[in-house]
Amino acid sequence: MKYFEEFTPGDAETTEGYQVTAEEIIDFARKWDPQPMHTDPDAALASGFGGLVASGVHLIAMTVRLLVTRPTHASVIGALGLDQLRFLRPVRPGDVVRVTIECLGARPSSTKPDRGVVRSRVTLRNQRGEDLLTYVDALLVARRPDAAG
Amino acid sequence: MKYFEEFTPGDAETTEGYQVTAEEIIDFARKWDPQPMHTDPDAALASGFGGLVASGVHLIAMTVRLLVTRPTHASVIGALGLDQLRFLRPVRPGDVVRVTIECLGARPSSTKPDRGVVRSRVTLRNQRGEDLLTYVDALLVARRPDAAG
Repeated sequence: MKYFEEFTPGDAETTEGYQVTAEEIIDFARKWDPQPMHTDPDAALASGFGGLVASGVHLIAMTVRLLVTRPTHASVIGALGLDQLRFLRPVRPGDVVRVTIECLGARPSSTKPDRGVVRSRVTLRNQRGEDLLTYVDALLVARRPDAAG
Repeated sequence: MKYFEEFTPGDAETTEGYQVTAEEIIDFARKWDPQPMHTDPDAALASGFGGLVASGVHLIAMTVRLLVTRPTHASVIGALGLDQLRFLRPVRPGDVVRVTIECLGARPSSTKPDRGVVRSRVTLRNQRGEDLLTYVDALLVARRPDAAG
């Protein structure tokens, strides 16, 4: 896990891949986003998407999973928010997605000495390198214990 | 389902409630956001949260579920993105959450006559009326079929 002091603007990293299945797209959407383009292959075929596509929430969930399960994930105290989130292309059954995360900036908290705010540009891409989802996230990250206080 | 023509800036609506359980918080996070404050009650107790809290992705998922399962949900062609998403307070086991959605604006597409862009302020609140999550979303919404072309 990475402490606040280890974040340098411009540093970037790409995760391993995650393969999406039709079954997972349907199961996820039945629970969290039951719209026909995500849950019904026939209706999806007749839609503007021309086939089943993963829910936008599912894209965010895959992105967070890929980031959090890295050995180099931040030592997170909490998430502040996301900005400029854009759904750029759909994710379809069989796609293999991976995330690139680039540090945009890191500043110490103005009120608490044990933490700082790290802002990152997050981009989800498919096996063809096409951008699928992008956003800027802001996390509260713990400072190295010996640096605090 | 609501067509583009039925959206008026200032119109607001609040969904039914959704009760969150510890089991769902843990199950969701094990798959999508495996961090100790979401998956491990003991570690969560020792964290700054003082107990188990739902993943931020889980908050977004609950919000989308509550919106999509309304009879008055928009006739969605696709989601463009989210802006200014903020995690304001944690969601804990037993909380009952509901969503208020307020139309900020609706404009016809400049390129496709069958759709328009609807922007909304979305706010998730708990049983005490406290804001938990807020964002602005932008959806592509179908125009009434007899209005297109």
